Amino acid sequence: MIDRQQTKQRMSRIVVHNDTIYLCGQVCKDTTTEPTIREQTASMLEKVDELLLEAGSDREHLLSATVYIRDMKDFAIMNEVWDAWIPEGHAPARACVEARMARPELLVEVSVIAAVVK
Amino acid sequence: MIDRQQTKQRMSRIVVHNDTIYLCGQVCKDTTTEPTIREQTASMLEKVDELLLEAGSDREHLLSATVYIRDMKDFAIMNEVWDAWIPEGHAPARACVEARMARPELLVEVSVIAAVVK
Amino acid sequence: MIDRQQTKQRMSRIVVHNDTIYLCGQVCKDTTTEPTIREQTASMLEKVDELLLEAGSDREHLLSATVYIRDMKDFAIMNEVWDAWIPEGHAPARACVEARMARPELLVEVSVIAAVVK
Repeated sequence: MIDRQQTKQRMSRIVVHNDTIYLCGQVCKDTTTEPTIREQTASMLEKVDELLLEAGSDREHLLSATVYIRDMKDFAIMNEVWDAWIPEGHAPARACVEARMARPELLVEVSVIAAVVK
Repeated sequence: MIDRQQTKQRMSRIVVHNDTIYLCGQVCKDTTTEPTIREQTASMLEKVDELLLEAGSDREHLLSATVYIRDMKDFAIMNEVWDAWIPEGHAPARACVEARMARPELLVEVSVIAAVVK
Repeated sequence: MIDRQQTKQRMSRIVVHNDTIYLCGQVCKDTTTEPTIREQTASMLEKVDELLLEAGSDREHLLSATVYIRDMKDFAIMNEVWDAWIPEGHAPARACVEARMARPELLVEVSVIAAVVK
């Protein structure tokens, strides 16, 4: 059985199957300012928190994360925010590569797979 | 137990484990013409349909898709074809980033995870 | 239940859930020389072997691999090493796209999902 939440025509923000949660790629919240990599990473991870909560999970139950970063010059600061966000002893598998996202102002995006908390 | 189909030395087109289907990255069908982004997206999704059918699933049971697009200028047209292909209420989680594929004429590729229909 | 191994603050090298193993993105071993694509691919796959062994699996039980290559000009040689490494009849689903990794000397990286051997 597949459980979808926040489903639009293009994608679902949350898809659950076999106690495994797939989130759609998360970027920072929309804003009229030009947020820094630090702000974008924090905002993106806040959105991941919200989706995981809605999916019946949390950041202690991440399985895998793929981080796309627009420019590796921002790698260190992104990691600083990431490291502070991860609960000690609960880090997921992770890969991070450079890529451009849908809009040029987007500096970082993350694809998350997590486990349902039982 | 792992079930593989269309297995060659480099990759299997279909791998099934735990009722979860992993497809190898799909691009458009080989052609002697230079297909547009619209044609490539349609052809790629047709191949996804064929593989899902062979794996015992269909496009109503997608879990997650990672779309690689050669140039974000093609994002809107790719999405148009994508949106029309997704059955209403059944959209997977999705991420889309810009990347170059194995051959320069390839404008779009997709990695799909789906569920076995039971 | 989630089983993590080689967990640091940023990531776990191994995460196991539902008999599915997620490895963190693997690149070649650190070295003071500038290894070629052939050497980097071999070294990267050796590290995958070591992690799979530790996770209770092996290269006959790969489910899915995402290969990131810095320059598609290296595609053929990477594939040569890859093809020789895959046990006949056991190839995973695979996608390969061009991307830059965390450090400019890195020519190839792989994200692996595998199955626990039972």
